[in-house]
Amino acid sequence: MQQPLVQEPFTLVMPGAAMSAAVHGGRAKCLQRLSRLELPVPTTVALSFDAVHGIATGRLPDVAKILSHFGAEPLLSVRPSSLDPDWGGPGAILNIGMNDALHRRLCAEVGEEAATRLFLRFIQSYAVHVSRLDPEPFDLPEHADAAALRAALDAYEYETDEEFPQDVGVQLKHVLNSMARAWEGTTARLLRQAKGAPANAGLGLVVQQMALGVGAGESGAGVISFIDPSTGMPRMSGRYLRQAQGRDALVAGSGGMYLTRDERGPSLEEQAPEIFARLAEAGALIRHALREEMQVEFTVSGGKLWIIDAVRVPRSSQATVRVAVGLAEDGIIRREEAVMRVQPSALSELLHRHVDPTAKRDCIVRGIAASPGAASGQIVFSAADAQASAARNEPCILVRRETAPEDIRGMHAAKAVLTVRGGITSHAAVIGRGLGLPCVVGASDLVIDRKRRVLIAPGGREFAEGEIITVDGTNGEILVGEPAMLEAALDDTFRTLLDWADGFRDIGVRANADTPTDATTARNFEAEGIGLCRTEHMFFERGRLGVMREMIFSNSPDDRREVLDRLLPMQRDDFRALFSIMVGRPVCIRLFDPPLHEFLPADKQGLRDLAEGLGLPLSDVTTRVEAMQEYNPMLGLRGVRLGVTVPEIYEMQARAIFEATVDINRDGDPVVPEVMIPLVSAMKEVELMKTRIDAVAAAVKVETGADFDYKLGVMVETPRAALRAADIAQHAAFLSFGTNDLTQMTYGLSRDDAGRFMSAYVNQGVYEEDPFHSLDIEGVGELLQIGAERGRVGRKDIVLSICGEHGGSRSAIAFCRKQAFNYVSCSPFRVPVARLHAAQLALQEKEPALFGK
Amino acid sequence: MQQPLVQEPFTLVMPGAAMSAAVHGGRAKCLQRLSRLELPVPTTVALSFDAVHGIATGRLPDVAKILSHFGAEPLLSVRPSSLDPDWGGPGAILNIGMNDALHRRLCAEVGEEAATRLFLRFIQSYAVHVSRLDPEPFDLPEHADAAALRAALDAYEYETDEEFPQDVGVQLKHVLNSMARAWEGTTARLLRQAKGAPANAGLGLVVQQMALGVGAGESGAGVISFIDPSTGMPRMSGRYLRQAQGRDALVAGSGGMYLTRDERGPSLEEQAPEIFARLAEAGALIRHALREEMQVEFTVSGGKLWIIDAVRVPRSSQATVRVAVGLAEDGIIRREEAVMRVQPSALSELLHRHVDPTAKRDCIVRGIAASPGAASGQIVFSAADAQASAARNEPCILVRRETAPEDIRGMHAAKAVLTVRGGITSHAAVIGRGLGLPCVVGASDLVIDRKRRVLIAPGGREFAEGEIITVDGTNGEILVGEPAMLEAALDDTFRTLLDWADGFRDIGVRANADTPTDATTARNFEAEGIGLCRTEHMFFERGRLGVMREMIFSNSPDDRREVLDRLLPMQRDDFRALFSIMVGRPVCIRLFDPPLHEFLPADKQGLRDLAEGLGLPLSDVTTRVEAMQEYNPMLGLRGVRLGVTVPEIYEMQARAIFEATVDINRDGDPVVPEVMIPLVSAMKEVELMKTRIDAVAAAVKVETGADFDYKLGVMVETPRAALRAADIAQHAAFLSFGTNDLTQMTYGLSRDDAGRFMSAYVNQGVYEEDPFHSLDIEGVGELLQIGAERGRVGRKDIVLSICGEHGGSRSAIAFCRKQAFNYVSCSPFRVPVARLHAAQLALQEKEPALFGK
Repeated sequence: MQQPLVQEPFTLVMPGAAMSAAVHGGRAKCLQRLSRLELPVPTTVALSFDAVHGIATGRLPDVAKILSHFGAEPLLSVRPSSLDPDWGGPGAILNIGMNDALHRRLCAEVGEEAATRLFLRFIQSYAVHVSRLDPEPFDLPEHADAAALRAALDAYEYETDEEFPQDVGVQLKHVLNSMARAWEGTTARLLRQAKGAPANAGLGLVVQQMALGVGAGESGAGVISFIDPSTGMPRMSGRYLRQAQGRDALVAGSGGMYLTRDERGPSLEEQAPEIFARLAEAGALIRHALREEMQVEFTVSGGKLWIIDAVRVPRSSQATVRVAVGLAEDGIIRREEAVMRVQPSALSELLHRHVDPTAKRDCIVRGIAASPGAASGQIVFSAADAQASAARNEPCILVRRETAPEDIRGMHAAKAVLTVRGGITSHAAVIGRGLGLPCVVGASDLVIDRKRRVLIAPGGREFAEGEIITVDGTNGEILVGEPAMLEAALDDTFRTLLDWADGFRDIGVRANADTPTDATTARNFEAEGIGLCRTEHMFFERGRLGVMREMIFSNSPDDRREVLDRLLPMQRDDFRALFSIMVGRPVCIRLFDPPLHEFLPADKQGLRDLAEGLGLPLSDVTTRVEAMQEYNPMLGLRGVRLGVTVPEIYEMQARAIFEATVDINRDGDPVVPEVMIPLVSAMKEVELMKTRIDAVAAAVKVETGADFDYKLGVMVETPRAALRAADIAQHAAFLSFGTNDLTQMTYGLSRDDAGRFMSAYVNQGVYEEDPFHSLDIEGVGELLQIGAERGRVGRKDIVLSICGEHGGSRSAIAFCRKQAFNYVSCSPFRVPVARLHAAQLALQEKEPALFGK
Repeated sequence: MQQPLVQEPFTLVMPGAAMSAAVHGGRAKCLQRLSRLELPVPTTVALSFDAVHGIATGRLPDVAKILSHFGAEPLLSVRPSSLDPDWGGPGAILNIGMNDALHRRLCAEVGEEAATRLFLRFIQSYAVHVSRLDPEPFDLPEHADAAALRAALDAYEYETDEEFPQDVGVQLKHVLNSMARAWEGTTARLLRQAKGAPANAGLGLVVQQMALGVGAGESGAGVISFIDPSTGMPRMSGRYLRQAQGRDALVAGSGGMYLTRDERGPSLEEQAPEIFARLAEAGALIRHALREEMQVEFTVSGGKLWIIDAVRVPRSSQATVRVAVGLAEDGIIRREEAVMRVQPSALSELLHRHVDPTAKRDCIVRGIAASPGAASGQIVFSAADAQASAARNEPCILVRRETAPEDIRGMHAAKAVLTVRGGITSHAAVIGRGLGLPCVVGASDLVIDRKRRVLIAPGGREFAEGEIITVDGTNGEILVGEPAMLEAALDDTFRTLLDWADGFRDIGVRANADTPTDATTARNFEAEGIGLCRTEHMFFERGRLGVMREMIFSNSPDDRREVLDRLLPMQRDDFRALFSIMVGRPVCIRLFDPPLHEFLPADKQGLRDLAEGLGLPLSDVTTRVEAMQEYNPMLGLRGVRLGVTVPEIYEMQARAIFEATVDINRDGDPVVPEVMIPLVSAMKEVELMKTRIDAVAAAVKVETGADFDYKLGVMVETPRAALRAADIAQHAAFLSFGTNDLTQMTYGLSRDDAGRFMSAYVNQGVYEEDPFHSLDIEGVGELLQIGAERGRVGRKDIVLSICGEHGGSRSAIAFCRKQAFNYVSCSPFRVPVARLHAAQLALQEKEPALFGK
């Protein structure tokens, strides 16, 4: 087969050379930029991706031509240069060119010890990384003397049956070859693909003249950066080591000195102030020119400073935000770029306390990372114990097989929640995210032994009630004990960045908020309104559950109405609280949704209490509770089906909403509540409910003498509602797609039960991703599109949105932008992330050339 | 408002008159037809629907003009003539025109007693039906003498303050007016609408010269028909009564004579052979000309025969079929017409034993008519009791809150099933239909008191275990005791009709059949194959459930495979049995579908037995059984999800299918089994399963050295599978739409839970019909259409069908024909009905003018 023609397999790095990161990799391009700044960069030759791929497939490079760029007896380093440094790659190899002759010359120039050490290090690298020999015989000796050198050379010959190569051309050829092949290895490929590299990601190589760092005069090597990598605050830091090469200064225990004056020891600033000054100057230059905070690798050779390399400072999420904002505030980058530079996932980390990445982790079990952040506390196995624990001021972790609505107060009391069952949208997960509570669900390898009150982990490890564990909801791990934590870090730069983001985005972001606490969080995160207020949680509160049960056991509409009249003032207060927190912003209230049996006790004691409370025989109560059980509650008597069959509940809720509206409107900005009907599958359901709710509104207007507006809309959760959206839109001012339920029904997949096989499905590639985690564009998305198009046919100015757990994800926001939805709504803690995603998507569309993909 | 112009409000009935049933009603049109046959029909005038509606709204008719068609002193009858006699209407009024003068004349002609009786009867009719007086004073006296006549006339004058009208014009005017108004009354309107009459159904009236039936010479009246109304067999029957009018002969205890020679008493054939002969001749003439079996009303007046009226013989379902086939076999109607004349619901009745329509019914409660037919037996409350009862040869009715797969053997043992919960597609309903077992489900007004072992019905009626009740699955009623039954009646004419139907239909009909019994039924009903063989029932059989449970508790794929190896020969036998019954016809086998936990016991004793059987601690077994429970089993780990995560089950099933195929192919016609994958939601699921099943096929071929074909297809049950049908069809030879599950998911509605509110929904018109009963064309239908279109995009020659409970319904078959599906598949007992529906739909399309709608 004919080899593809490769033009310019290698390029001398200099200001005018034709180079790009896409062809030669980031390091090569960066070195060219440094050279443009007229910084003292040693001679460098860059090999393109194609050239390196060619090497790996047998097309050996014209080494002589490469060497022609260097002097007669060159000493070289080779470093990898891929598109993204995170993708890894072979380690640098230094001192290529060392041989007996050069060794002799260097013995004279820098002393035998130093010269021999250079040679030994090269032999070691070459033997281990190029000739792939067992490393042990090549360990560096304490004394770098002639005997040690002889031993190393002999060991090489013994192992390979060849003498150590003396020719720099041969050495370089083999180094390039081994690095090229290392990149193509399966493990390396899998590792980088796990970090997002494409299958065909290329490796460039950089061949650079070594600056020695050893010898007479000020000689050494160091690394400097100009920010604190944890906080992003400006602070010069790094290490410098005399008589050293490369990144030796960073090796622990290697000694060396600080860069800036420091009371703990000597510093470059004091010891070599001129070099320090030139380094500081170079740093400022690099920051402006490379438009990034860089970590600079430098070598001092006989008093001369060489800039060897510069890489983006590895940094924490907090620092990422601060650097981006700082660069933009200094006019170095545009605000658009600052917004694009922050990964939304980094924001998410900032919002939560999390395990210090450097802390030691003893992982008990892995589950599904359902709500980010981490917390430690004593194991408790019931909501009541969690509340008792909280009362004693002892942090606790609520561990349950699964959670149910009656666990909510226990969840409030706990620091984190761990469940054995459930998926990314299970009750525990949804509530956890709503509360900003770390949560791991579906840890199906755990067994709760309730009798013995222990948690049994894989391998038979047991953790008793009261023992301390840590829930890491960011990565789904449960850890033994209490590792070090980093606090949430919401600072001004965070707000600044999001303000900028809001200036760029073109789709609304609301929050799903059920409680005043949620609403306050939403407001703090500048949600534009509440997109989904689930009202059912309100009925589990103290003093309400009993009334609720009484309502369920009422025998006639009149009895029901009488009981609901007692709930009315409480509901009115709920809505008044929400309206006053969100004042001036829309609040979309979903009418009662869950099946009524969720409000009934399941255990014997609960049934006995209920029978006593209602003054009914236990057998009656038991029979009725049993009769209300459902096979598939998700698909049962809930949502608008309750609205149709037990209309008194929706009437009470509508009245509470309207009365709260009138109350709030007396004091200030008029509220326009949005009333949303759940689980619609037919137009007639909406028509019926609209008639009833309009009647309640008219009654409240007459009774109060006050006028108000409201909007009635539909939550599109069934495939049929999407298909019939044109009809439905006749009676609905808005359609909000409940993608959780819609995903369940489109796939025929219960989110609560999917956890048991979802990982197998995703691992085998049956589903590309968990559709509850990542909106299924192909299936559910098509129903959204059909629903949106038909909704607009039914009502030209219909307001479209999605609510539910997908609302904050990038793919869902991208989809909603494309379909020109009005807004997305997500958990309060995802609002900042969603705002950033939305801005980035808008910028990507506006300036595709700049922001790629 | 201007009255609409009514042309020809009345028409003299004669061969050339412009008349139609749509304008004048069926009776009028029929009389015209009789007159065309030159039969002795008395002078008749027909009033059109418009004319009668005019009368009801005040436009009184020109009575004089009507009377001008009759003689000087006419004696008239008025009879209703609507489009469909089933719609009811006012009763006939006879002897209009009777007055003092005519009475005197008739006294001379026919004798005082007879003349007075005619007058008295007219006064009675007129008083009660026209003047709406209390009937009691007008009861007919024992002796029709002058005193009685005086008393009647006085009573009339006393009640109305008016003399009894003497003028025939006045009498006729009031008769017409009262009959026209009776038709417009609310009750009459509701009654006929319940029978399918449109809101604007019109009434025509027929004014006819009376043939006296009293007086000298052979005089009397009778009714004759030429078939047995129960069986449809040719048999002259009816009654004749001398000195009588109208239908008097049919009044019980009125005496009279038989028509044909009969040893029980005198007959017209003997007493007046000439008249009898003319009557028989007229009957044959009428049958040919009216192309129907008619019941003829006749009067003999002084030896002259008059044909007064003819109506379609009311008949049983069995007779309906025989008459249609008989008329076609005699060349009187075409076979197409015969096929169109039988209501498919009538066929359904023939297939099952049913309650004699004339039996007295004491209805305990109503539920959902889930499987047609009726059966009586002792109440039992458990499957075990049903089996015990069957063992004692005591017919029993299994009464359960709901049924589960473990009740199947009890259902087999019972004569009928009654459940408190569930809808038209609940477990009990599906199995009931499959077994042809009468079944009523969702009788939610019943309470089962298990402790006291009684059934509590509305109104507190209690029925203890062992008491006899009757389940009428045709209309959903539960009856006290054991009313008279009519047996199923499948005769040759039934088969003839369906053979003809098969000649006309253009869509295939297969049966859903899981067992050899089902398959035999399917074969007897000439299903073209099995469209859906559900394999899960096979694992509940004796000796298999235990193995199944062992499999579920296996800890590794190897253990599972070892256990499944024990099930393999049993499965192979299952399939061999089906293939040999269906030989030469396709059998589509759905791989294992239900969640595994359905096979585990739910009660303590069952758990204890299981623990003992498996040799595991009870707590282990309990924990694992609990851990396998699902929130929404319908949407859980079942179908292809088991295929992906526990592949050994499908592999065993595929092997059983292929080994059975090889076995059967040795002996005869090659079988081409169809393997169907359930609950698919993504193409990849199919791809994965296809790879595995192809591998099993290849292995079986190698092992047996035999070659065979098979088809792999997909059951489209999730909305996503319909949306992604183009992908899926790449790997599927056929798509069969499981409309049960697809309806559940499209609506977000569990069929098992829907029963609790479906009637409220349908009554309030929220859903036009129960979508589990009647295919939802607008929503589910659109997904079917999308799936079909895209399936054809993915594979041009893909075979399309629906299986599931909708398969036999007319609307579903109509839909499938329109979408050019290849076949429908339904319960074996619905196959004949589906064949007839399909033929009728094809004929309707082919000859829309003939077969209307």
